[in-house]
Amino acid sequence: MMSRRRTPVELSDFSRAEKRGVYKAIHSRRDVRQFLPQVVGEPELKRLLAAAHHAGSVGFMQPWSFIVINSSYVKNQVKNAFEQANVIASSVFEGERRELYSRLKLEGILEAPVNLCVTCDPTRNGPHVLGRHTIRETDVYSTCCAVQNLWLAARAEGIGVGWVSIFDPSQLRAVLGIPEHIIPVAYLCIGYVDRFSPRPELETAGWQARLELEDLIFHEQWGQKSTGH
Amino acid sequence: MMSRRRTPVELSDFSRAEKRGVYKAIHSRRDVRQFLPQVVGEPELKRLLAAAHHAGSVGFMQPWSFIVINSSYVKNQVKNAFEQANVIASSVFEGERRELYSRLKLEGILEAPVNLCVTCDPTRNGPHVLGRHTIRETDVYSTCCAVQNLWLAARAEGIGVGWVSIFDPSQLRAVLGIPEHIIPVAYLCIGYVDRFSPRPELETAGWQARLELEDLIFHEQWGQKSTGH
Repeated sequence: MMSRRRTPVELSDFSRAEKRGVYKAIHSRRDVRQFLPQVVGEPELKRLLAAAHHAGSVGFMQPWSFIVINSSYVKNQVKNAFEQANVIASSVFEGERRELYSRLKLEGILEAPVNLCVTCDPTRNGPHVLGRHTIRETDVYSTCCAVQNLWLAARAEGIGVGWVSIFDPSQLRAVLGIPEHIIPVAYLCIGYVDRFSPRPELETAGWQARLELEDLIFHEQWGQKSTGH
Repeated sequence: MMSRRRTPVELSDFSRAEKRGVYKAIHSRRDVRQFLPQVVGEPELKRLLAAAHHAGSVGFMQPWSFIVINSSYVKNQVKNAFEQANVIASSVFEGERRELYSRLKLEGILEAPVNLCVTCDPTRNGPHVLGRHTIRETDVYSTCCAVQNLWLAARAEGIGVGWVSIFDPSQLRAVLGIPEHIIPVAYLCIGYVDRFSPRPELETAGWQARLELEDLIFHEQWGQKSTGH
């Protein structure tokens, strides 16, 4: 009796359109700073949070929590924290670079109907987490994977997400009442948009070009460009 | 003249099937340890790497590099590094937990046709990266987002990805010739599979239950469970 060999094709459990959707989300996702005022509904927000919650995590640790922020009062405090950090952050650039920096819109904290702080609890599930013995930072790595899930799900919903990283973390902790041992990994501005730019803003603005993928690939060893076959 | 108000619905540039594909990838992605021997073709691998390369990154830094590993010789060295780290990692668990740990398959380094080390270069694009002044780790955060992109694209292709995190990073650096200042963020085993488990392996094995999403959501402030409306 011939055994029928299993081929990868048999597992194509994604239709063409479903597969296209995944790549479309990945390639057209943008870091957004301009939002429409429309409310993001509870069901949509829940779908985004569920997407984040379904990221893989080291030892199935699920170290994340989500602080959903709608209050203008809280947003204003966060905006202040951004502005204080940004004065210092901008000061490292000089000349034309400084001028370009000052023209860039780097956040949409007040405009975005929803803000979301995604945190990581390194103590979740006790001191010994499977797979986290040698590389402790894998808890934060997992949390970042959760953020990317949310970002892509949002793209498919027509919802823009902007990651603001210009904060003194201790100030962000103070504003949001986050305990000292919890890491505020990502602060996200979330809302509907009327468009997603065809290219990243920093590319369009001439701040930084996209690198060639080919230049970033090595084979077998760091620095080795050919496969050696 | 009435101005027609832009509604989010107008931006539904994802078809139902495309949107379904994104959520399907997110919810059915698994951390895989069992692989089929079929070769992952060059075009498929390139699509996965391009997906990773299209993650957002702080200041459009694109700090990642990719070491593609096909050589059995290199895989064997990596496997050795895993085994050495795993002896120590397993020793922290006791009794039933220890026994369960020893029965879990935690990697598929030799079985997977392709291994991939995703690294982060904290020095890429010079000392001053936009948005990275206050939270230096955002370079690694970006690299993790790239990993998640690749993971989801692979799922849509019917390709399994398993993240192995039980290594002494300095040993992994030695095996792959990675310079001291480069961070090996993720070591991935990649290959076709004949199935994706309906639930994460650690959940099925009774190692750890999935947390309730609702318990992980706060409003306005850490620890606050109601919206206050």
